[in-house]
Amino acid sequence: MDTNTAAAKAALAHIEQDENPATIKAKSRDFFWYSPVLKDRMDHLEADFVVNPKTEAEVIEILRVCYAHDVPVTTRGAGTGNYGQAMPMRGGCVMHLRHMTAVKEIHPGRVICEPGILLKDLDSACKEHSGQEIRMFSSTWATATIGGFIAGGSGGVGSCTWGSLRDLGNIIRLRVVTMEAEPRVLEFRGEELARVSHAYGTNGIITEIEMPLAPAYDWVEMFVATKDFIAAARFAEELANEDGILIKLASVYEAPAPFDYFSRVRPHIEADDTLIGLMVAPHSMDGFETFLARRPEARLIYRSDRSDWPKTPGPVFEYGWNHTTLRALKVDPAITYLQVRYAFPRHLELIERMRDEFTPEILQHLEVLRENGKVMFAGLSLVKFSDEARLEEIIRIHEEAGAMIFNPHRYTLEEGGRQSVDDRQLAFKREADPKGLLNPGKMIAWDDPGWKYDRMYAYPAMSKPAEAAE
Amino acid sequence: MDTNTAAAKAALAHIEQDENPATIKAKSRDFFWYSPVLKDRMDHLEADFVVNPKTEAEVIEILRVCYAHDVPVTTRGAGTGNYGQAMPMRGGCVMHLRHMTAVKEIHPGRVICEPGILLKDLDSACKEHSGQEIRMFSSTWATATIGGFIAGGSGGVGSCTWGSLRDLGNIIRLRVVTMEAEPRVLEFRGEELARVSHAYGTNGIITEIEMPLAPAYDWVEMFVATKDFIAAARFAEELANEDGILIKLASVYEAPAPFDYFSRVRPHIEADDTLIGLMVAPHSMDGFETFLARRPEARLIYRSDRSDWPKTPGPVFEYGWNHTTLRALKVDPAITYLQVRYAFPRHLELIERMRDEFTPEILQHLEVLRENGKVMFAGLSLVKFSDEARLEEIIRIHEEAGAMIFNPHRYTLEEGGRQSVDDRQLAFKREADPKGLLNPGKMIAWDDPGWKYDRMYAYPAMSKPAEAAE
Repeated sequence: MDTNTAAAKAALAHIEQDENPATIKAKSRDFFWYSPVLKDRMDHLEADFVVNPKTEAEVIEILRVCYAHDVPVTTRGAGTGNYGQAMPMRGGCVMHLRHMTAVKEIHPGRVICEPGILLKDLDSACKEHSGQEIRMFSSTWATATIGGFIAGGSGGVGSCTWGSLRDLGNIIRLRVVTMEAEPRVLEFRGEELARVSHAYGTNGIITEIEMPLAPAYDWVEMFVATKDFIAAARFAEELANEDGILIKLASVYEAPAPFDYFSRVRPHIEADDTLIGLMVAPHSMDGFETFLARRPEARLIYRSDRSDWPKTPGPVFEYGWNHTTLRALKVDPAITYLQVRYAFPRHLELIERMRDEFTPEILQHLEVLRENGKVMFAGLSLVKFSDEARLEEIIRIHEEAGAMIFNPHRYTLEEGGRQSVDDRQLAFKREADPKGLLNPGKMIAWDDPGWKYDRMYAYPAMSKPAEAAE
Repeated sequence: MDTNTAAAKAALAHIEQDENPATIKAKSRDFFWYSPVLKDRMDHLEADFVVNPKTEAEVIEILRVCYAHDVPVTTRGAGTGNYGQAMPMRGGCVMHLRHMTAVKEIHPGRVICEPGILLKDLDSACKEHSGQEIRMFSSTWATATIGGFIAGGSGGVGSCTWGSLRDLGNIIRLRVVTMEAEPRVLEFRGEELARVSHAYGTNGIITEIEMPLAPAYDWVEMFVATKDFIAAARFAEELANEDGILIKLASVYEAPAPFDYFSRVRPHIEADDTLIGLMVAPHSMDGFETFLARRPEARLIYRSDRSDWPKTPGPVFEYGWNHTTLRALKVDPAITYLQVRYAFPRHLELIERMRDEFTPEILQHLEVLRENGKVMFAGLSLVKFSDEARLEEIIRIHEEAGAMIFNPHRYTLEEGGRQSVDDRQLAFKREADPKGLLNPGKMIAWDDPGWKYDRMYAYPAMSKPAEAAE
């Protein structure tokens, strides 16, 4: 630890810190290891110290002290992101918001809370208070925080109805602390929200969140099996297009992924079964059953409210979104994934093209998503990883066909996003983080404004692995 | 009154009946007079007697007695329909369900009630019980019944989010009494619902209804004005396509209709202002304001939660759907209307073509509607009526362009619908109304299976006007 870092750590001694080296190592990591590319680059990263503020005042103090000592601050929630969002690229301070879990106010249609509360606990509080829940959540609902979801996520379970976090109305207000000599506290609404949502904590620290709520129902979770992948994709799309049937999840897993990777489901299906995972509101089940009966090729094999399975599969949403990749990885460590956008109206055509091109090297995993009012698909394709060059080629072929890739094998905002500079985020970073100390190395535009995206960006100031540094 | 009818009336003397001739006349009418064509054909229609059952048992008895005496039964709620749905084509009994108003059960996401409750009262009960409300309602919310809405309506306020009543999931269950020697009581769900919903009471009488509910919010009602009609239509469509902004209404009224017909709005706009009527959830107002600020041509002139208008305009939804026509008719009795379907993705193109063809003979009134998951428009065009031949020509030009017309100048189910036989409704009428006594003359397929729809259908057994009959 250099002199400055040691001084900052000492100056923050009155705020809770983790001293156990194993804890410090653990809190310097997220789920970056989903990607063999990121695993190769980032596995060694480690914070110099970890601090756990309990209040906004403590957040302000941490930012003030670290600013004074030129110490980088990387903020984390539960560390369930997959892009290395929460990993300290050049050491310094990791600030863990685990203690900031207050639910401050709940009203019809909205909640005000602190960033460190788990999605699960936030939902419990809202449900108990007034039968409400958040509109959308990541499949890591049980372990992830709302602040991490907003700063590092884009959507998830619920996006089939409500769209993505970036859509107007899906975040109401964020309270943000800047990293300056005297940190400021700002309130962002409307257009301003785009400055700091999905910015990985690179330009401000979110200390309070106001989110819209939807009614909490006892969602009926289901698995439907079919022998035909495209029929399954159509089933999911057509269900999402039924305006009178309220759903929260519609996932499609191409055969043989369900048989190979979903151990609790495996006894109930065959290897050639493509699976559809669903969450449907209980008062929409009559409509759903009517919809289902019109499609005799689809077999309802599980419903959570009337299950006769000897072993429960657990929540169906824990098979969807990035949990699908996680389940595959547990069985086959050579699996990795892509994040693909199959946009309306070419979504099904693009999916068929990619299947023609890549099956069985890639198995399709689709999630129904609304974008600009249209039902389309996010793909979280399961890829049999051979090497980085082949992964690049696969990505290129997707992009050339018109299927946008949000590359999960990159640690920068730009490369994991639309490969372009977000001027709003950059402008606000200039204002709120003049020394560039917040989560350094994650915003290319800050460090290398002329970057061409022709190859993987490598942050020059990134900490070296121990053997290389010695 | 013929012998049979008199006998039926006498046999039902223990059930409440209306004896005042003015009341009998009033209860033999609905809002058919919106159409000069229907006004011309139906103004003389009158029931022989009006009976007001209080229970399902009384409904059964009325149907049994009238069946025994071959007396037609036309069932009505509040009589706010516009297609003459509730008018007795050949006299007989009008059965008014005004007393069957019980709310039996309310659960998360659904309500069970009797058919005669006003939409307004049903909403009050659901809101008071658990902060819920019905998904959609006609603009006659304050005066119409839920049973009439289901038997004679198709959608309305809320259809911008939830689609139409006929969509899967928008009605859960209907309990129906048949008209046979011994009336049966049936429970319909799923595919069976299509037999009796929007069937004008021609093949069974609905005595209990289970409907889905949505959360009740203190909707912010607004008027937005623009000088450009197509910009206004795009505004409404784009707002409805914002997945994160929850709306319940998006209407567009072409200039100068708002200035000419909306007296409470007139002081705040100019003759060339096209108006947009909106209902937005309060927790979506931040998102809405952001959306609005991106469209500087649009002026927010009224919002219900912060109004400085000296005279309140009343509920904004009472300017939309068929209330627009009503307001126009009150100012200019020569106005009538059309019901048009501008389907995705050609909706805006079709609207522009119809404007090129017909402005100013027709002023556009659009309502955002979801169909098969897509935002599109229902048109309730304001037509300056000249004569029936011109009206026919206007309809023909719409249809030839691809804009489907639900002709509100016809009293039959088929002509007001898709000009084709609904086999499910017909088959169920054979079963449930073997003597053809339920709301006679409204289902062409029953009376004239070979009808070609080449001209207006005229029910041969329709009562004649008094002077003609004498």
